[in-house]
Amino acid sequence: MFLKNKQNKISNSIRIRLFVEGKYGKGCLLEISESQVHYLKNVMRLDAGKQITVFNGLDGEWLATIVNYERKGCGTIKLLALSKPYEASPNCWLLFPPLRSLRTDYLVEKSTEIGVSKLIPVKTSYSQISRFNVRRHRSNAIEASEQCGRLDIPLIEPLLSLEDVLSMWPESRILFFCDETGGEPILKASYGCAKSESGFGVLVGPEGGFTISERIKLKKQPFVRVVSLGSFKLRTETAAIAALSAIFASKDYNNS
Amino acid sequence: MFLKNKQNKISNSIRIRLFVEGKYGKGCLLEISESQVHYLKNVMRLDAGKQITVFNGLDGEWLATIVNYERKGCGTIKLLALSKPYEASPNCWLLFPPLRSLRTDYLVEKSTEIGVSKLIPVKTSYSQISRFNVRRHRSNAIEASEQCGRLDIPLIEPLLSLEDVLSMWPESRILFFCDETGGEPILKASYGCAKSESGFGVLVGPEGGFTISERIKLKKQPFVRVVSLGSFKLRTETAAIAALSAIFASKDYNNS
Repeated sequence: MFLKNKQNKISNSIRIRLFVEGKYGKGCLLEISESQVHYLKNVMRLDAGKQITVFNGLDGEWLATIVNYERKGCGTIKLLALSKPYEASPNCWLLFPPLRSLRTDYLVEKSTEIGVSKLIPVKTSYSQISRFNVRRHRSNAIEASEQCGRLDIPLIEPLLSLEDVLSMWPESRILFFCDETGGEPILKASYGCAKSESGFGVLVGPEGGFTISERIKLKKQPFVRVVSLGSFKLRTETAAIAALSAIFASKDYNNS
Repeated sequence: MFLKNKQNKISNSIRIRLFVEGKYGKGCLLEISESQVHYLKNVMRLDAGKQITVFNGLDGEWLATIVNYERKGCGTIKLLALSKPYEASPNCWLLFPPLRSLRTDYLVEKSTEIGVSKLIPVKTSYSQISRFNVRRHRSNAIEASEQCGRLDIPLIEPLLSLEDVLSMWPESRILFFCDETGGEPILKASYGCAKSESGFGVLVGPEGGFTISERIKLKKQPFVRVVSLGSFKLRTETAAIAALSAIFASKDYNNS
């Protein structure tokens, strides 16, 4: 959580945000977990009575007050009013091979901040890692969402083979395949497409790249657009963040 | 270095790259350091006689052959031919507050891959870290440059105050100030500007943001353009990478 280490300077100016699942209504009392109590009480040093904000990924952001901390670790908050209406993140899926642990943490954190709606780890021939801990990365995604101000949490899928992902892919959803051997500049390819109602996906490959047969298979799919991220060879997580940042900046630009 | 962990699969298809400082010519014998020998010999398992590529940030990329490894740790390589002519990275400076160690590592690595030409750590009122290890980050930047295929190494400046940086700033160089309180969408603001001959800079703030007086001072500078990276509150290093990725993608787009 973003403020952990700078509470003295700015905790008064920025409201603490918590993600709490469930259906809410004004005046509801919600139980918060031990780790949330630890964060509020010991890290942020907020006493009962102080205000925070909470979101559930459904209604938007609620202003809430801390009612109490219980002895056994949990606590209770009370919802005061809806302070920000819900707005879904852009309908964007990120497909990526699992990386060594810190690099996957980073990829999940950054793509959550930028605004991805679903993270799909895919197993490809040259992936080096064949494990993906959904629980750990869901927790990373929640923390990043709390910090960056988004009103929902990206979905985290379990590890799937590239083949399975392609066979289940919705035909109307464009998939931008970031190909290190070259393609259309990503901003040009995504112009107009990224805002389509069916949403879009971004696929980045493992450090070893894709095999020739994976590449052929990808290029055959009617929904795939082959894009380039420039002439340098980017690491997997850099490619993911660079591609998302470019497309999301382009969306802003188009709206302005 | 990029290939360390997947040597079995792809070491044959991708050439190992080393940064070696100095002026070169065809046929030159160059001494390589102990750590470079360790990398070639023990990590990549390349015997004498094998080919690698080297670059010095001046001529481009040279094809070279490993002549020998000496007993005391160093080694010698011989330059065969210039395999790629020099091309400078875009004239882009990144200004950022130093972060906790892993996050600065990350920022340096990613911005090097994306193609920044100079990294300038700046001390602002709300910076939490007041140290910046130039040597460590130069080494990070070299490793990232070797890996991503660029032909130069970004310059790494020592820590300066924001005030000093602004007072020494070249008037003809645009500085995109990423302001979390809002500004022009970055792609719109950078259109045309980012390609100017004088180059450009990108400034991102610390987690606590800028003070009101820093903000006023920044906005007064004739070279500053206030830009927005969207509605979410990005971490410092995410903001840096997102801003650079958007501008660099736009450059590609404009060229196509």
